[in-house]
Order: sequence, then C-alpha cells, then structure tokens
Amino acid sequence: MESLKLLDGEAGDLQAVMLDMGRRARKAARKLALAMPEQKNRALTAAAAQLRARTPELIAANALDMANARAKDLTSAALDRLSLDAARIASMAQSLDDIAGLPDPVGRVLEVFERPNGLRIERVATPLGVIGVIFESRPNVTADAGGLCLKAGNAAILRAGSESFHSSRLIHDCLVAGLREAGLPEDSIALVPTRDRAAVGAMLGGLDGAIDVIVPRGGKSLVARVQAEARVPVFAHLEGLVHVYIDAEADLAKAQKIVLNAKLRRTGICGAAETMLVDRAGERFLAPLVAALLDAGCEVRGDAATQAVDARVKPVSEVDWRTEYLDAIIAVKLIDGVAGAIEHIETYGSHHTDCIVTENAATAERFLREVDSAIVIHNASTQFADGGEFGFGAEIGIATGRMHARGPVGVAQLTSFKYLVHGAGQTRP
Amino acid sequence: MESLKLLDGEAGDLQAVMLDMGRRARKAARKLALAMPEQKNRALTAAAAQLRARTPELIAANALDMANARAKDLTSAALDRLSLDAARIASMAQSLDDIAGLPDPVGRVLEVFERPNGLRIERVATPLGVIGVIFESRPNVTADAGGLCLKAGNAAILRAGSESFHSSRLIHDCLVAGLREAGLPEDSIALVPTRDRAAVGAMLGGLDGAIDVIVPRGGKSLVARVQAEARVPVFAHLEGLVHVYIDAEADLAKAQKIVLNAKLRRTGICGAAETMLVDRAGERFLAPLVAALLDAGCEVRGDAATQAVDARVKPVSEVDWRTEYLDAIIAVKLIDGVAGAIEHIETYGSHHTDCIVTENAATAERFLREVDSAIVIHNASTQFADGGEFGFGAEIGIATGRMHARGPVGVAQLTSFKYLVHGAGQTRP
Repeated sequence: MESLKLLDGEAGDLQAVMLDMGRRARKAARKLALAMPEQKNRALTAAAAQLRARTPELIAANALDMANARAKDLTSAALDRLSLDAARIASMAQSLDDIAGLPDPVGRVLEVFERPNGLRIERVATPLGVIGVIFESRPNVTADAGGLCLKAGNAAILRAGSESFHSSRLIHDCLVAGLREAGLPEDSIALVPTRDRAAVGAMLGGLDGAIDVIVPRGGKSLVARVQAEARVPVFAHLEGLVHVYIDAEADLAKAQKIVLNAKLRRTGICGAAETMLVDRAGERFLAPLVAALLDAGCEVRGDAATQAVDARVKPVSEVDWRTEYLDAIIAVKLIDGVAGAIEHIETYGSHHTDCIVTENAATAERFLREVDSAIVIHNASTQFADGGEFGFGAEIGIATGRMHARGPVGVAQLTSFKYLVHGAGQTRP
Repeated sequence: MESLKLLDGEAGDLQAVMLDMGRRARKAARKLALAMPEQKNRALTAAAAQLRARTPELIAANALDMANARAKDLTSAALDRLSLDAARIASMAQSLDDIAGLPDPVGRVLEVFERPNGLRIERVATPLGVIGVIFESRPNVTADAGGLCLKAGNAAILRAGSESFHSSRLIHDCLVAGLREAGLPEDSIALVPTRDRAAVGAMLGGLDGAIDVIVPRGGKSLVARVQAEARVPVFAHLEGLVHVYIDAEADLAKAQKIVLNAKLRRTGICGAAETMLVDRAGERFLAPLVAALLDAGCEVRGDAATQAVDARVKPVSEVDWRTEYLDAIIAVKLIDGVAGAIEHIETYGSHHTDCIVTENAATAERFLREVDSAIVIHNASTQFADGGEFGFGAEIGIATGRMHARGPVGVAQLTSFKYLVHGAGQTRP
C-alpha cells in the first residue's frame, strides 16, 4: 500500500497514484465478482462492528474536520451535514448491517427463455465492475457507498469531500478492516488519499479504463462538473425539480394532505416538491391549498391568480420554475389541465419525480404515460421517491438519466448481466 | 429542412448543421416516445414498400458508390459489403417488415411490486431518447438501425460510411417517406448529410446533449475511435475474440461438431470461434479435433503439443491469442483444466462469447459463473451469439460492455424505463 500513501502537502505524482489505485481496484473487482454472498456480508458486518468499536476515535477525527470547516466559515447546514455524533455513527453501522441483510443481487436470474432448438438461455445479474463515487460533505456516504458497491460485487473508488477528510479516512479504515476480516481484497474499497481536486479530474478521465461508471453525490455544481467532464458513463443525479399537479377532478382533502407532505415533511431532500401546478378548471382548489401551505409556514410564490387568493403570496418569476429550493418555499401556477401540466413539467422539470392528484383514472394514466421522469406518481406524496420506500434497501442516489439505472439506485441497479446458454450439442444450421 | 442540405463540397458550418440536427432529433424523440405501436409499424412497413418500389433507383445509386469504391481500390470483401442487388434490397425491406412484426418494446411492464403502505409500483419500459449510430460500408445498416431505433420509440441520427453515401441517402429517403406516411416527425430518423469525417467528431461530442447513446457498428478502428473520443455513453461492440474450451470430460463427437460449427459455419461473424483451448487432461482430444479442423480446410496455429499431433499445424505466437481472424484460421492451446481456460480467456478475451464443452455439470457451472463475457455457452456453438438466435428479432449489434445493454442489442435493449407509482392518497410518515 506504500504507493497510495499520498497525503496532503506531500510530494507525489498524483496521476500515477490514481492510476495505480485504478489497477488495484480492477484486480479486486475480479475477485469480488466471484465472492460468495456470506463473505461479502461478513465484511459488511465486521465493518459495522469496527465503526461501533471506534466511535470515540471517529468523533475525535470528526472534531478535526469540524474545526477546519468552522475556520472556513461553512454554513450551519453544511456543518450539520459534516458532523458525526454517537447516534449518527450507530446509524451508519446499522446501514451496513442492513445492506448485509439484503438479498444478494449477483447471480439473480433475471429472465429465462427456451429456444425452439432446445437452447435454454438465462440472463443473470453480474457486478458492474469498478464504481467511482464522488461526494461532498456527509462522511456517512463513505460507508453507505462503499457498502452498497461491495454488496453488488463491485470495487469502489471513493472520493470524499475535502471537508470530511479525517472522518472519511477513519470510516474507510473500518471498511478495510471488515474486508480483511472477511478475506476479501483490501483494494475492494479505495479512498482517494488526498484533498487535491485534481484527483476528481483523474477519476472523471476513467483511470485508463479502470472505472466503469461514476456516481456523483452532491450539489448541482458537483454533478454539473462530473457530467461535463466525465469520459466514462455517469449515473446522473440531477436536482429534484419536483412538481405536484392538482387536477380539476382531484379530491381536495387528498390533494391538501399530499401537497403538504410533498413540500414540507422534509424540505431538503430531492423528492420534496418545489412547484404546485393547479388546473384552471379546478381554480377553486387554489385558495384552500395555498392557505394550508402558508398556515404551515411555507412561503408561497405565485402567479397573478395565486396572488389574488391570499395577500401573503409573493410574486413568482421565471427563475422560480427552474429553482430547487430545498426549503419551505413553493412556486404555484394555474395551468390549463393535464396537457398544460405536462408541458410545464417537460419545459422546466429535471426528470426526477412528478405527481398528479386526480380521481380521474384516464387523466392519471395520461400523466403517468406522458411525463418522462424517473418516477411518476398518482395520488401519493413525492417524498416516497426513495430507495428505502421502494423496498430497495439503501440507495446510492436517484438517477435522472435514462442509461442503465433510473430512479432509486440500490444494489440491484449497481449490477449488469450476462447470458448463460445451456446446450446439448446444438450447432447453428 | 433547408439548413440540413449540406452536401459534399458545399460550404457550410458543419457544427451548426449537426447541432440543428440534434435539436430536431430531440424534438422528434419526444413525439416518437408517445407514438402508438401501430403508427410506428405503419412507418416501418411503408418504408419497406418504398424500398421495394424504388429498387431500380437504389441499384443505380449503389452503382455510383461501387464505381467510386472501385476507383479507391477497396478490397473485394469491402466491395461485397457495399453492393446492393435486388435480393439484398428485398431482404432489407423484409427486415423492416420483420421489425414491424415484433412486439412493441415500449410500455412493457418489467416489474410490479406492492409496498406495505399500499403503494403499487410498476417499472415500465420507455424509449432511451436519441441514438447516434455510426457505421461503415454496409448500406443496409441505414434501414436496420433506423428501423430498430424507431420501433423502440427512439430518434436516430445515422452516420453512414462515406463509401455508401449515395445508397444510404436513398435508403434514408425511403425511411423518411415511411415516417411521413405514418404521420410521424420526419426528423425521427436523420442521416448526416455529408461525407466529412468531422461529423463523426461532432456526434461523439453528443451534439450539446442531444444524443443519449452512440452505437458504433464497424471494424476495430472505428469502435476504438468512438470509445476513445465519445463524450456520451457508447454501446461498445468490441471484436469477438471467441474461445471454445474442450474439457477433459467432454464428449468428443459433440466437441468436434461444436468446434467445426463455431469456427467454420461462417468465419466472418463476431460469434465465430478464434481460439480452441484443450484441457491437458483431455490431450487425447487434440489429435482428432485438430485433424477435423485441418481436413475441413481450416488453418491451425498451435502450441508445441498441438504441432506434435499433426505436421500441418503451424506455430502459434502471442499475437494469435489476441487476434480476431474472421477467417478460416484457429489458434489452439493445451491448458490446465477449466481454471487454465478461465485464466486464458480473462487475459486475452474480449468479453463477447465463450464456450465450454463438457459433460461435467459442475465444471460447466464454474465456467458459466466465472467467465465474464456477455454470452457464456455450455455445449453449443458460439455462432448462436446473435439476436435472431436469441429470439430478439433483429439486432443492432452485440454489446461487450457492461453498462445498460450487454450481448445482442435488439429493440428491448434500446429502451430505458421509469417507475409508475399508484397511490390512494398516501403520505410519507
């Protein structure tokens, strides 16, 4: 491991270190692909035990990161994302145990078909290979992402945000200890050993073919950089510009419950609603829905019709339709029926999650069919846009692209497949 | 369409023309995604009828291409790939009719699950978006690729090899006439209107986000250029470095039949075997297998053990293990059992198609599990590596990567998916 000991400030050829990391990961991936489920699970539970046992050390490492971050004037939200306490460490360990408890995604038979010539063809799940994960301040992503990749038989190259440098390194130590205990290659989960941003550039270049896919986890600017620069496939996790459309044939009580939950249950998650579209033919819903949002402490920015129903409504502008507030603010607009809603969503949305509230099944069906988003919901809160809520267990994020993975990316989405052809001597005529 | 009329030798801003083509394709894709199956099928059968009706014109256009190609001293194999006659045109038309006859891949319910809170979640197939296809001399790819993309609800941007310029343009005219007749956007299938190689570079750049995936169809150098330069995902179609491993517990008669078919049925296709690996414990098979291959007219290049069994065997060198002959030549090596075979295949293979011949089920299972190729076959010819043989109908190629599509890429592999969530007012606690 000598060559990987590149720490901040040390001299060293970063590119060479990164390429070496890539080669090791590729080699580890080959072994990991053939590891038995029990072995992977043992590594996960052993890592969880390590995290629990080393809680005081983790808190001390995190205190270093927090001190550095405070000196850099980070926002209180960023400091909160960065901080670890005993409860958060326990929950990180629990996540690893939960991942160990998931069904093994590798080797699942996805399809079986038999050909007229007697060939039996199975499509079975295989690992993807080497996954690069680039994330920001939350140190728990080190454990979550490493654990999810491992479960799916993939090697991982993790690049933690520079703020969480010390915390992430210690969490990574725990993961490696777990791998060692299970007899799996220590290179199965690598952590970029430097804060140098050039390491991100190296990963985006694919490390000479060693990285199969990049998963960015973080804010808009990180994702944008990754999408612009990556020379390898990316599981794009764009922002969640989530819409709730209230149709004229909606049930008002249901609509109110759904909108309040979609907007306010947690405002900082990507499945939180940012825009409410109300059918012009259901204009009567506008006043009660807007009042309910305002009364619940939500700022409402609306078009002229919305401003007319309540003096507390602020004017909305074009930029609002494109803004992911991640806060207790909602943009509201009166539009012309389901066609108008679809048009607005296709113009301004981010293909993440969108919802229709209606009692008309045909209208719902049209919306579900025509809205091109990863998750399209009828009569339920958009905050269900979550791997756990889908029953996938933990997720590495919500993909908004259309290649390979889309929607919540759990362990099953971190796999590929191959065809197994069972013959009895058949030759092709 | 004025801005797209960029022909050879004309002045014009190629980049602007290509970007415009991208924007039009994206717009068409949106409409195509919502087209009814019957409408897409009507466009396909109408295009087939056009091809049949315009056969004399097509033959004349092809004669122009052939004359240019002869002046350029193309090989006779390349000339053969380029040439069209009435039979080939009829078969191209038939392919479009066959694609029309396939089940529609869009809207298929891939998965349904119900959550404890009563949410019913469906995963349904959707189009991928805009597919860029870059291909070489065979003009029929214009019809095949355009037809497959259309069937899966995708817009296509096709870049035909410069040799087939006139033939491809006329075939494209027929496709557009089909689209028009079905009332679908004419921009659904675009053909790059220039021989300028810079157009390929523009496509590999993704046309400002307009292209979702690139499919290269052609020789090694084309695929290598696409993989090196593409800024968008690629369905990698690498060469087929296909192996047949004869285990010590193989049935000799079966092995002989399979190897002869795998190597010689057609030598020029990617599923043709290039290397035969024989288990050292089954060395007795070497002489009869090698004799059968030689007697059938195949050149055999072998290691020392193979040379020892027949004077006609030529010596093999390291480069042979990495060579896709696409000809009646086979490399032969004695290796140490299934572990040695797997090791050789992982070192030299192209993750396309590999085969084991054995009567031992456990050995077969190990080979199928451990060989990381798109298609792994037990006791059958590798020439079954084909979308038609898999029952997928036509294929756009065989993907050797692990992202999104792997193995034969038929219409189903040209789709993505989305989740439809059916609720009854659920909110998230």
